[in-house]
Amino acid sequence: MDFLRPETVVDLRNIRNVLIRMEDTIVFNLIERAQYPQQPSIYKKGAFNIPDFDGSFLDWLLREEEIVHAKIRRYQSPDEIPFFPNGLPDPILPEIEYPPVLFPHPNKVTVNDTIREFYTKDIVPRICISGEQEENLGSSSLCDVECLRSLSRRIHFGRFVAEAKFLTEREHMTALIKAKDIEGLDAAITNKAVEKQVLARLKLKAETYGIDPMTPNAPGKATKVDAEVVVEMYENWVIPLTKKVEVEYLLNRLEE
Amino acid sequence: MDFLRPETVVDLRNIRNVLIRMEDTIVFNLIERAQYPQQPSIYKKGAFNIPDFDGSFLDWLLREEEIVHAKIRRYQSPDEIPFFPNGLPDPILPEIEYPPVLFPHPNKVTVNDTIREFYTKDIVPRICISGEQEENLGSSSLCDVECLRSLSRRIHFGRFVAEAKFLTEREHMTALIKAKDIEGLDAAITNKAVEKQVLARLKLKAETYGIDPMTPNAPGKATKVDAEVVVEMYENWVIPLTKKVEVEYLLNRLEE
Repeated sequence: MDFLRPETVVDLRNIRNVLIRMEDTIVFNLIERAQYPQQPSIYKKGAFNIPDFDGSFLDWLLREEEIVHAKIRRYQSPDEIPFFPNGLPDPILPEIEYPPVLFPHPNKVTVNDTIREFYTKDIVPRICISGEQEENLGSSSLCDVECLRSLSRRIHFGRFVAEAKFLTEREHMTALIKAKDIEGLDAAITNKAVEKQVLARLKLKAETYGIDPMTPNAPGKATKVDAEVVVEMYENWVIPLTKKVEVEYLLNRLEE
Repeated sequence: MDFLRPETVVDLRNIRNVLIRMEDTIVFNLIERAQYPQQPSIYKKGAFNIPDFDGSFLDWLLREEEIVHAKIRRYQSPDEIPFFPNGLPDPILPEIEYPPVLFPHPNKVTVNDTIREFYTKDIVPRICISGEQEENLGSSSLCDVECLRSLSRRIHFGRFVAEAKFLTEREHMTALIKAKDIEGLDAAITNKAVEKQVLARLKLKAETYGIDPMTPNAPGKATKVDAEVVVEMYENWVIPLTKKVEVEYLLNRLEE
């Protein structure tokens, strides 16, 4: 992808366009998950008897999917970070030599554990009706895997955002990094106007994609996903975690 | 799911609601696939050196994913039919006793090979720009897997539609089935008014979900997926294949 090349990462507009496109994917994935009930047992360690695995059913499925995706080279791409990085198999596709865009290369900043935590504990209970539906445990977990993946990719994209900002304000940023001035870095990467725009756009997307356009005003018609929850998820989790990733990335930026 | 219970399958309105919801999933999946170029090599047998597998890269990935999904019980559900049914592993989740809804039970009507054929040869070249992008071979194939899955589920749902229609017109249908009157069955299951409505709704969905709602009238703004192709896919493939499934189902309906 273009944003993975050194010559385009400098341009923050390119990165913003990718981030905007990812919002669609995230909203689509949440709409798909919201079809099913909460299914608390898939998040509970020990709820099912899974051979040779010590974790929840969702963790097991996430791991199984990551094993397949490692084979198709997903985690060689600098914008993808697995939830279970240990012991993944080699790709069956020939290796790609990605030009270094992030520094140090490869970059290892990860907040995947926090993402899984807020998604399963704060988001699922608010977008899904309560209860368990035995026939859809698998389908619900697959939707979770997609939601987690798209959130992880979006939030860790903060590393590219940070690199772009670093390159445009190299001197100022270098001073802040050397001083380990976390507050200063946080202020330097924050753009309140853009954040407000993101939230407004997300609300509109969740509402637009979540309503049958043939009957947008049908009485009592519930939207497929609660737009408020989507907005609050960005406000309380996605944006702050992205900034956390950005700051952490920058703090390690000079170690070449 | 409710439509998998004998007491609700009779009600064609329930089934139609499920079909309408599946349209969203299919449109979302096509929008996701349309981000990437066509990637002709993923459909070509022998394009990659895949150990112990004689087929295209997409077939291999589809098979790998079906192995994982068999473990989470996907293909025990009467509305799911794998593309590679041979040698799938047992589920790790406890078995569910689905009450028989389709007859004979379990029902084996499948058009998956045709679905893969029309999707890869007719749809991908029309929704994606031409060319190959090495970094996204895996992502594109994963989108294909999702598209194929959702199309397969949608088209094979014809079996439930056929059963519902059979139950409401049992005498008439039984006579047509006994006479092996394929044309008569085709006429009996066809509802031109509903088909027209489906196509109109799909157009609107593809347009609505495929445009950034913040800038719906941005000049030169391409939609994320060509709505005409989505409509024509239903017109030329999804609806005719669903009817084929329905007729085939009915022809075998009396063999209890």
